[in-house]
Amino acid sequence: LNNIRTTVVGLGLIGGSVALSLREAGRVVTGFDVDDLRRQYSLDHDLIDRDAVTLESAVRDADEVFVAVPVLQSLIVLQDLDEVMSDEAVVVDAGSVKVPVVEHMQALKHAAHMVGGHPMAGREVSGPEHADPNLLKGRNFFLTPNAHTSPDVVHSIGVMVESMGAFPIVVDAHEHDRAAATTSHLPQLMSTVLAGMAGDDVLNYVGSAFRDATRIAASDSAMWRDIFVSNRDPLVSTAQEFLHRLQMAIDLIDRDDRPGIERLMLDGKSRAQLVAER
Amino acid sequence: LNNIRTTVVGLGLIGGSVALSLREAGRVVTGFDVDDLRRQYSLDHDLIDRDAVTLESAVRDADEVFVAVPVLQSLIVLQDLDEVMSDEAVVVDAGSVKVPVVEHMQALKHAAHMVGGHPMAGREVSGPEHADPNLLKGRNFFLTPNAHTSPDVVHSIGVMVESMGAFPIVVDAHEHDRAAATTSHLPQLMSTVLAGMAGDDVLNYVGSAFRDATRIAASDSAMWRDIFVSNRDPLVSTAQEFLHRLQMAIDLIDRDDRPGIERLMLDGKSRAQLVAER
Repeated sequence: LNNIRTTVVGLGLIGGSVALSLREAGRVVTGFDVDDLRRQYSLDHDLIDRDAVTLESAVRDADEVFVAVPVLQSLIVLQDLDEVMSDEAVVVDAGSVKVPVVEHMQALKHAAHMVGGHPMAGREVSGPEHADPNLLKGRNFFLTPNAHTSPDVVHSIGVMVESMGAFPIVVDAHEHDRAAATTSHLPQLMSTVLAGMAGDDVLNYVGSAFRDATRIAASDSAMWRDIFVSNRDPLVSTAQEFLHRLQMAIDLIDRDDRPGIERLMLDGKSRAQLVAER
Repeated sequence: LNNIRTTVVGLGLIGGSVALSLREAGRVVTGFDVDDLRRQYSLDHDLIDRDAVTLESAVRDADEVFVAVPVLQSLIVLQDLDEVMSDEAVVVDAGSVKVPVVEHMQALKHAAHMVGGHPMAGREVSGPEHADPNLLKGRNFFLTPNAHTSPDVVHSIGVMVESMGAFPIVVDAHEHDRAAATTSHLPQLMSTVLAGMAGDDVLNYVGSAFRDATRIAASDSAMWRDIFVSNRDPLVSTAQEFLHRLQMAIDLIDRDDRPGIERLMLDGKSRAQLVAER
């Protein structure tokens, strides 16, 4: 195990955390980022064993490549990687939307050695200065093979995922994106819109519920913009469903339908309890 | 201070927590609840010094009365209290909606000795078994006088609030209800509606964002039904505003307006950061 060489491309919150975690698991980690400041920080704070100043030199000798850049950027990185990676290396990404990534991968020369990935971990802060080796511990890490991905590659990425204490789960990319639209992208959008309603007139009345509901609105804006546009159709569809349900709830309140409101609350409560057990 | 006798009416999460906290602050606390099980539990677990089996016996000798029952019930309790309380006692409630309470109070004989109250504290669990003497510590506790409330009464309730480590803030009941609709009642409604979308097909994809966003949907259903109907007009108005903003956000995504999406995210982020500092 001590000889596995992993390259992390993109040294943000996820990349930095993965690098730390993989180092702790005994891998030799090379880090690359187009942002020199992030690269230098990662080197100075021992998130990585060594750095590289070009993608080519970063991945030349790598056994594994972990791509942790915003999802639209990852399409370009994968294309570049395809030209410079060795024929033995395996590649996984960490984008929150999987269909565009997987469709892009399967058109590349090294498609068989590439698999989509999505760790269910994130925070409202960004950058390598928040790297945490335990960020992925105990979390699901979805793997979405493309049409050409070799089963051996899925296996070896699964071993890497497990070495970080996360649980690899192989799923279909379309199913993933539809579900993530509801469980991740919609809550982000709601949080952003709610935060926009926090005018100065109501700030005094903010309690823990509002703080909790708007916390993730402070997350990286460019990253989320990319996620939203990459998963447009599933997100618009689930957000319209939410709008429809909220309008029905408002109607119940508007016409003082107390039994109807209580049924709505009890249904939400029973689903929330199922969610809490996950 | 050791001689102040406080009666807590309603031994749920808030009432039990207030009782514990006031006991720790040196008051002698009598507890009353129409639910014998809650009363007995509170006695057995030393949340209160003594119990009473009728409202009349509970408040006969009380210097202070803290009413902690669901908001619609509190209107009946206040009416009953008005008949049996001493002319020296001061009364505060803890309901999340203040206009109906304050309007009700000011029609009573003891209106001058009554003030509306709303501690900005709550949890997704209910009942005296979750009582926590620190629940209100560091939290704002809004006080809404009615037209006849004596300034001395506001002062003495303020002292009681401070003895629990909370911050008394005197505000207008209408302003309170409009703001609370946005900061508290709307997030609760959103959480309930979102939780209702957690079908079995997406449970595997639940991460911390979804768990956080649906946590409060597990709160007491009957209590929230009462809050929603008691604050109908402000809640419907702010929820429609949210719907409108969410629809605009969906439109930005649907037409792939990336600069527009990023402006929306950055605005939400800056408001969320202001909220987090509160």
